[in-house]
Amino acid sequence: MLELSYKSKTSIYAKDQSTKDILQRGFFGNASGSRLKLSVIEALYLMDVRNARCSGKTTEISFSNLASRFSKPRRFMARYLTYKDWRDRGLVVKDTKYRYSTTNKNPVKTYPSGKFSLAHYALHGTFFSSDLTTMIDEKEKGRELYDRYWFGQYGSYKAADRGQLNKLDIYETVFLMEKGALSVQNATKSAIVKAATARRRDFQKMYDVYRDWREKGYVIKTGFKFGTHFRVYFPGAKPITGADNGWTHSRHVIHVFPKDSRLLISEWARAIRVAHSVRKTFILAVPGSSSEKRLSPDFILYHRKGGEAENPENASPRYVMLSLGEEEHIGGREFAGAISEAKRMHLEPILAIADRETAVTYYKVRQIKLPGSDSDYYEIDWMQP
Amino acid sequence: MLELSYKSKTSIYAKDQSTKDILQRGFFGNASGSRLKLSVIEALYLMDVRNARCSGKTTEISFSNLASRFSKPRRFMARYLTYKDWRDRGLVVKDTKYRYSTTNKNPVKTYPSGKFSLAHYALHGTFFSSDLTTMIDEKEKGRELYDRYWFGQYGSYKAADRGQLNKLDIYETVFLMEKGALSVQNATKSAIVKAATARRRDFQKMYDVYRDWREKGYVIKTGFKFGTHFRVYFPGAKPITGADNGWTHSRHVIHVFPKDSRLLISEWARAIRVAHSVRKTFILAVPGSSSEKRLSPDFILYHRKGGEAENPENASPRYVMLSLGEEEHIGGREFAGAISEAKRMHLEPILAIADRETAVTYYKVRQIKLPGSDSDYYEIDWMQP
Repeated sequence: MLELSYKSKTSIYAKDQSTKDILQRGFFGNASGSRLKLSVIEALYLMDVRNARCSGKTTEISFSNLASRFSKPRRFMARYLTYKDWRDRGLVVKDTKYRYSTTNKNPVKTYPSGKFSLAHYALHGTFFSSDLTTMIDEKEKGRELYDRYWFGQYGSYKAADRGQLNKLDIYETVFLMEKGALSVQNATKSAIVKAATARRRDFQKMYDVYRDWREKGYVIKTGFKFGTHFRVYFPGAKPITGADNGWTHSRHVIHVFPKDSRLLISEWARAIRVAHSVRKTFILAVPGSSSEKRLSPDFILYHRKGGEAENPENASPRYVMLSLGEEEHIGGREFAGAISEAKRMHLEPILAIADRETAVTYYKVRQIKLPGSDSDYYEIDWMQP
Repeated sequence: MLELSYKSKTSIYAKDQSTKDILQRGFFGNASGSRLKLSVIEALYLMDVRNARCSGKTTEISFSNLASRFSKPRRFMARYLTYKDWRDRGLVVKDTKYRYSTTNKNPVKTYPSGKFSLAHYALHGTFFSSDLTTMIDEKEKGRELYDRYWFGQYGSYKAADRGQLNKLDIYETVFLMEKGALSVQNATKSAIVKAATARRRDFQKMYDVYRDWREKGYVIKTGFKFGTHFRVYFPGAKPITGADNGWTHSRHVIHVFPKDSRLLISEWARAIRVAHSVRKTFILAVPGSSSEKRLSPDFILYHRKGGEAENPENASPRYVMLSLGEEEHIGGREFAGAISEAKRMHLEPILAIADRETAVTYYKVRQIKLPGSDSDYYEIDWMQP
């Protein structure tokens, strides 16, 4: 029987030599003189799963009793459940005060760099504020704009011959006006931006992301079919290729998550889930270079190598985990802050989300570099540890 | 060449006999004396796709010119694009002023009716407001509550033997307190509801839906893994069955869409998309019996039978379409209003969403009856016309 002692909020420790030996072999606790000090999460785990007994000054303390003395901070149970899940997989987890050495360099993935270029156009369009759409009646030019640069939709989606108009969406409209290629007969650019902002308050942030990628040569179209804001094609993409029945497929989608926005974790995860179900790479865009909010990750994670669990004796930690609950909120600024903190720790960030029935979903976050951009972009992948 | 005439905002008509004959064979327009009157949407379609020419008093009118005279009302282009898509599929669509007769009865699907019952329990729990979770330390009772009634999660998800606690989510906590089966040592029911409402403002609406189904014997658990609020098991479900490796699978998920909430269509559709990708039946819950907002559907749709397109000469219309754009908003009250209107028209409601590049996605809406409930529930299915 594992025996633990609770003395005060800063001191839970293993009592006897036999308990200490077992726990140290399992990489629980930190030696502190002749004692083995445990964090409350470790103690709770040992009580819940390893049947440990925890005695207070006079009586035995239950799981809930011990937990409720520490549970003030946000995400306490999320922390417990994600710790438990990692441990239950036979893997080692330490709290972030644990000292480790690592040669891990946070991998940043660099995306190809292209350049936007456009032949000289002087297109004329009509703006429909009811639907934030611009119609170009000029058939040849409209068709060329679609075929060569993939702006707008000539005819209908996947049926460019079905109709004689090019329909630009709101992002394309504003972008082409900025480039001087389009004049709209019935609205100024600022009236158009105003109409768009009235429809969705985050329009400017959405547009910033659109422009950022378009200016680097990428083609950006709506991501509606994949449940995201945009889908992305690498520089040079055109609607029609020779291969695959002629239609070009995207492999990346972008969800825009402004720094000043907040989302329920369940909504945040929903966006990633759709992209994952259609096998697209999910890119989270956090536009702008403004401030971050500090959010410290919760645990240091050892993983496995060649099927063997790694531990503090044979390896360096690989990941750092941010523990979240399904009904928690996360802000863009906090998200960026947590990722920066992981970078400082030289560990790869993982978001672990405990749902309402204790199941934990893991997402690996990898920063990507879009050359020339000052916004933050991250690939987010579902992972099975 | 099809020749159309524009006289005023209430009068676009076909000019010559040849045009009239062609259009009437295609079920365009309504005869008005010797003229064939066209709606603006019909005229635009004929100009865009059938190369029709439209003359005004003195000069020819372009697509955009004609459209912009009518485009004030919300969703004008969405209406055009969804009309076009249905027509491009070789199917007939008429505007809602068109007189039809139908024997169609809106099918309402009745769900099985069960009854909630619970043995006498006097459980004790500890509430963790940091995570809106209640822990029950009482091992036997906690385990029984999970095994017999599927309240909470004993141990871990899909691993009930991994641990000794039953963890109730916030909905289960409040429900069991209401039933007198649970007392929470460190919080009153109203303090718990207050903490939940601080976390998510729609808590009460979420709970109303939870209770509505639970009281009819259904088992309701988190839908996080499927991107929705809840997943549902029919009355009598238990976590473990004999079949399929022992785990019980849900086939229904619920998304709560309160009457006073508004969602971007793209977000609304995202929720359905996840459910669809995991092959669950998506149920939209519009809790409460309060007022609706009138929202008139846009078109009457003929479909096909045995591969043949139906039309006003050989069939009754089957559907009524509400046309929406990706960046439009929809409110719970409006949604309920549009469905009621469809019911009055004796037609089945379809939501057609035109995305930013003219692709149209169709969702069929079918009201379901949960016996004893006064909330509205709808099955929403993606459809390919």
